[in-house]
Amino acid sequence: MKSAKAEHADRAVPAHPGDVRTASPSIEVDGRRRVVALALRPEVDGGRYPVKRLQGELLEVEADLVADGHDVLRAMLRHRHATAAASWQETELVHAGNDVWRASVPLPELGRYQYTVTAWVDAFATWRRGLERKFAAGADVAVELLEGALLVDAAIARGAALQKSAALLRGQLPIAERVAHATSDELTKAMRGAPDRSLATDFSVREVTVERALAGCSAWYELFPRSTGPAGRHGTFRDAEPWLDYIAELGFDIVYLPPIHPIGTAFRKGPDNAPDARPGDPGSPWAIGAPEGGHTSVHQELGTLADFDRFNAAARARGLELALDIAFQASPDHPWVTQHPTWFKARPDGTIQYAENPPKKYQDVYPFDFESADWEALWAALRDVFMFWAERGVRVFRVDNPHTKPLPFWEWCIREVQARFPDALFLAEAFTRPKLMYALAKGGFSQSYTYFSWRTTKHDLTAYLEELARPPVTDFFRPNFWPTTPDIFPEYLATGSRGAFIGRVILAGTLASSYGIYGPSYELMEHTQRLGPAGKDGSRSVVEELAQNEKYQLRTWDLNRPDSLRHVIARLNAIRRANPAFQSNRSLRFHATDNDLVIAYSKQTPDRVNLVLCVVNLDPQHTHRAWIDLDLDALGLPIDTPFQVHDMLGDGRFTWRGRRNFVELTADVMPAHIFEIKRFVRSENQFEYFL
Amino acid sequence: MKSAKAEHADRAVPAHPGDVRTASPSIEVDGRRRVVALALRPEVDGGRYPVKRLQGELLEVEADLVADGHDVLRAMLRHRHATAAASWQETELVHAGNDVWRASVPLPELGRYQYTVTAWVDAFATWRRGLERKFAAGADVAVELLEGALLVDAAIARGAALQKSAALLRGQLPIAERVAHATSDELTKAMRGAPDRSLATDFSVREVTVERALAGCSAWYELFPRSTGPAGRHGTFRDAEPWLDYIAELGFDIVYLPPIHPIGTAFRKGPDNAPDARPGDPGSPWAIGAPEGGHTSVHQELGTLADFDRFNAAARARGLELALDIAFQASPDHPWVTQHPTWFKARPDGTIQYAENPPKKYQDVYPFDFESADWEALWAALRDVFMFWAERGVRVFRVDNPHTKPLPFWEWCIREVQARFPDALFLAEAFTRPKLMYALAKGGFSQSYTYFSWRTTKHDLTAYLEELARPPVTDFFRPNFWPTTPDIFPEYLATGSRGAFIGRVILAGTLASSYGIYGPSYELMEHTQRLGPAGKDGSRSVVEELAQNEKYQLRTWDLNRPDSLRHVIARLNAIRRANPAFQSNRSLRFHATDNDLVIAYSKQTPDRVNLVLCVVNLDPQHTHRAWIDLDLDALGLPIDTPFQVHDMLGDGRFTWRGRRNFVELTADVMPAHIFEIKRFVRSENQFEYFL
Repeated sequence: MKSAKAEHADRAVPAHPGDVRTASPSIEVDGRRRVVALALRPEVDGGRYPVKRLQGELLEVEADLVADGHDVLRAMLRHRHATAAASWQETELVHAGNDVWRASVPLPELGRYQYTVTAWVDAFATWRRGLERKFAAGADVAVELLEGALLVDAAIARGAALQKSAALLRGQLPIAERVAHATSDELTKAMRGAPDRSLATDFSVREVTVERALAGCSAWYELFPRSTGPAGRHGTFRDAEPWLDYIAELGFDIVYLPPIHPIGTAFRKGPDNAPDARPGDPGSPWAIGAPEGGHTSVHQELGTLADFDRFNAAARARGLELALDIAFQASPDHPWVTQHPTWFKARPDGTIQYAENPPKKYQDVYPFDFESADWEALWAALRDVFMFWAERGVRVFRVDNPHTKPLPFWEWCIREVQARFPDALFLAEAFTRPKLMYALAKGGFSQSYTYFSWRTTKHDLTAYLEELARPPVTDFFRPNFWPTTPDIFPEYLATGSRGAFIGRVILAGTLASSYGIYGPSYELMEHTQRLGPAGKDGSRSVVEELAQNEKYQLRTWDLNRPDSLRHVIARLNAIRRANPAFQSNRSLRFHATDNDLVIAYSKQTPDRVNLVLCVVNLDPQHTHRAWIDLDLDALGLPIDTPFQVHDMLGDGRFTWRGRRNFVELTADVMPAHIFEIKRFVRSENQFEYFL
Repeated sequence: MKSAKAEHADRAVPAHPGDVRTASPSIEVDGRRRVVALALRPEVDGGRYPVKRLQGELLEVEADLVADGHDVLRAMLRHRHATAAASWQETELVHAGNDVWRASVPLPELGRYQYTVTAWVDAFATWRRGLERKFAAGADVAVELLEGALLVDAAIARGAALQKSAALLRGQLPIAERVAHATSDELTKAMRGAPDRSLATDFSVREVTVERALAGCSAWYELFPRSTGPAGRHGTFRDAEPWLDYIAELGFDIVYLPPIHPIGTAFRKGPDNAPDARPGDPGSPWAIGAPEGGHTSVHQELGTLADFDRFNAAARARGLELALDIAFQASPDHPWVTQHPTWFKARPDGTIQYAENPPKKYQDVYPFDFESADWEALWAALRDVFMFWAERGVRVFRVDNPHTKPLPFWEWCIREVQARFPDALFLAEAFTRPKLMYALAKGGFSQSYTYFSWRTTKHDLTAYLEELARPPVTDFFRPNFWPTTPDIFPEYLATGSRGAFIGRVILAGTLASSYGIYGPSYELMEHTQRLGPAGKDGSRSVVEELAQNEKYQLRTWDLNRPDSLRHVIARLNAIRRANPAFQSNRSLRFHATDNDLVIAYSKQTPDRVNLVLCVVNLDPQHTHRAWIDLDLDALGLPIDTPFQVHDMLGDGRFTWRGRRNFVELTADVMPAHIFEIKRFVRSENQFEYFL
């Protein structure tokens, strides 16, 4: 813990000390600090939480600065890499009008940067502007030149070698020559090099967390390795290895494994969440811990730690990364239950508190007691779970139910892990209330699960994305869209409609720069929902979860089934990779259509070179036609010149013109277009000319 | 200055210490504080500046609070009167859904209040909820009752007299009886009275400035007392006294006087800003200071300090308040120029820097040098100008050009004055850039001049008011609308159209709860613009200012001219007083019309009892007709039942029905309706029944 304290002290990120110090109504501070620091962007909650950016991006900073009167201001963006305790670098801000000042700096390194802005009244520039105006108006500026000489004297006192300039301004040369020197670029540059910053106003220091590109754009494939064995046998990491070829071929970036740790036997769950397991039932991977080990051990039936390392290396060799599921809870058999009884809540009858959401009981799971007097040791042990796997080369963690652990813990823990492994990424599986979901992202999670699974109408998708793809949300929250998970199987897919499955995965992969599927149930269109426990009248209602759920039993999958969606998904991922417009959500823009069951939206790269337009039929039952009303301004398209749209899914090419264009989409064969729009394809020298 | 420091130290309003302390990623603090303080409303710039409210209003506070999991939270709004250093009072917040918590407290006293929110996990309420659910589901809750007994034990340790309850929960009574006691209102109340707040999370302390009602709603009349004498003679306070009857009859609240101090003779300006005054020219009242005195003296030609006191008392007797114009600048003859040379900027030739905006020169005015090494004495002297007049009973100050003095000065100065005179009000005459205008309001000005004078189209008025009448602006900025001032005479009125003058004053007085006119030029429809200085070709362009301007010469006015607008203005002010809907801007709502030259908007009281609708013809040349499309939902009007609208200007009564209703407005006779809308007038027992 010592290192945590030291790091915090060094960070020195109080909330707004600079702002308060300089603009305080008290006379304790120097009242001559005339610049008021009004606002700094980007920032999250007034600087309370770091902003998020990706490695190689620019940090584009805006500061609202005012001072009394009309004097010329100068302002510097100061930034440094915090983790490396680098020295501050300065970049001058430029006035962009309306008292907004702008500058940007590159973020080449992973980790945390600090940034702030300092601003002051530039007496020399103010004087020079007045001199120029008066001289142009024919005024006698002899005294003004002497005033300028005093400003130069002060710069000399600050170390500038401008003795000649001071003498010249005071000298006997004709006024016009002295004015020419006073307003020369040479003197201005020299004076700018020796500014008087003694009365500068500082913003408080903000932070930006820089993560690697994968944090911003990623395609995930969730795989239960125990289902990769031959029918009837528990799969192992060795069995799962050939699957890596399949997943790489489909174009995914990340293979996400549910917990790989020993599974407890006490109160083990049987198939479809049956309260008592039969002998041989494998149990839920989320019931973590058995006599052979806990969160840093591997389930024996999957293999050894060495097998895991080999599997991890095999993934890396195929351009894939593994993501481990970290679920901070323990089965009653977890070694910590006896080693660290204070980390669990003892009940008056001597038993340990199991998880519950009254009246539901989860006797196979003990939550950790974060209100334990021994919480510091618990925090350290949990952090060290991440450290353990990171040391073995794992850099992506999908965190189970983070919203049931204290937010201060996550803020500390992620900071600790990223301080040592700045390429470590964390996906929050927090299906919880909106403000809590966002609070976890503010606390440091790189990506977050979302409500996408339940957003199926044009209105709901549009409203949700308009929130997610705009500041301030984009500054701290990176959505990861999953059509289904082992825990969520939404009604929309329950008919098993092929068009619904295709449409949802295309929406996920094109609306959000990060998405994932729970495979192979997804590409094989599993759609039977499991039944819940019998009610008082004996009837059993449907649960929003797949039946024969891999959470509780082994499955065997036929990846080569002819109706598999593998080829559509491979095409989707290939399109995502080929079109950098899909790597960010900030450019997302919806376009009106005259049919509520047809949604249209575009994305483009900041340089506007790559421009894509997606049109999706949201009705899995019927073919739909629609007129799309394109926002040509936003797309940078001409009003009256044709342009080509190329459907990268079906390879069709169409010539469109103007705002309104027509589409027809089937419900099942292919309910979507993903168009690349070519803006300038008029040359006969290009293969794709069409005029 | 000592008192300022002491007050500041006592205030202890750092920016976000609470938020940071409790959610810091460091382990320096107790990691078991599970509540995260996300956001507190209202607040201005994250708590950096106080929120503004009026005496007698409620402070309605919302806090966004989250904790991990599903535990029950409790939260207290804490507030106290800061100036009086009162003790903290607590009001419980209620969960309003979506993790938003609400409470409100009255603000009965003038001055500054502090407020914050503290929140914690309520272990007993969480336990009780679980117990109830488990018991209802038929579970054995014997152990749960023992857990409850432990919570009661802890409350006993904190001082609660609950020994019997603890024994009962542990005792031999049937489970159902023990559950009944555990969940009884009695025990819950007792446990709520002894909460464990050791792990509470606090927001940082925010402030609210409470000013009197006049800060929120006021009608101003600007009068040059020197123009109240018989023709040719300098008017005095005694001459001006009868005018108070006239102004009171017109229904104004405040008589605002341009500076009343001795006027310098050096570089005195002549009529229409002529650079050299002729003998006998009175000079500009803003060239403050002469050998006989400065900012705390009265111009001899107006009378004595005793005359001023008598004039002030006469105003009070008529229900009027005087507002003094405080302009912090000095004529070269101001006593401070010799007494405090360090408060002015000396030039290298020994002269004092006069005001300039190159190439323009204002040799009759010396600005104060706020970068002076003696700035603390200067600040104190300027503050004491307000103190001097406040001691003489003046409580309203119109501050000239505050944007040319440092913002930290105003923040300190207004706080100092209001600490002693909490009923003192400050109007900022800052016609400057938007962010600087807002910064002054944040710094403490009670009201602010605006861009209204130049907002004449429906689009511009709507866009501007949508900004001014909504949070966050309403929390710190109170607009005061002036159609004209001695410095501003907009083009729109230059034709002298009667309809334009009537329309603009009605817009000012109904769009904004505070407005003012520069009289009697306004009601007498003066409209000749003065000519600027001759250009190089000898031509003189029009200046956006009235000719024969009272700033530079005496005028004589005939208040009884038959074409005077005095009766329209008196009617407007009477309507404003009779209809509390006009006392605030927050309820302002625009309604669509099918004519861009007809604007329609409504205001209503929070209790919706008083509802007014204004419709104004913006074209001073032509009669216009329009269909008004009322937002019936916002107005609380029925879709299909007729309602009565009563035009309080012309006394016409109309029966309207539904959304769309027709109006016709002349350009000159009366270009506006101010309707009172009667929602429920269906009873035959009422005089105004109409069905």
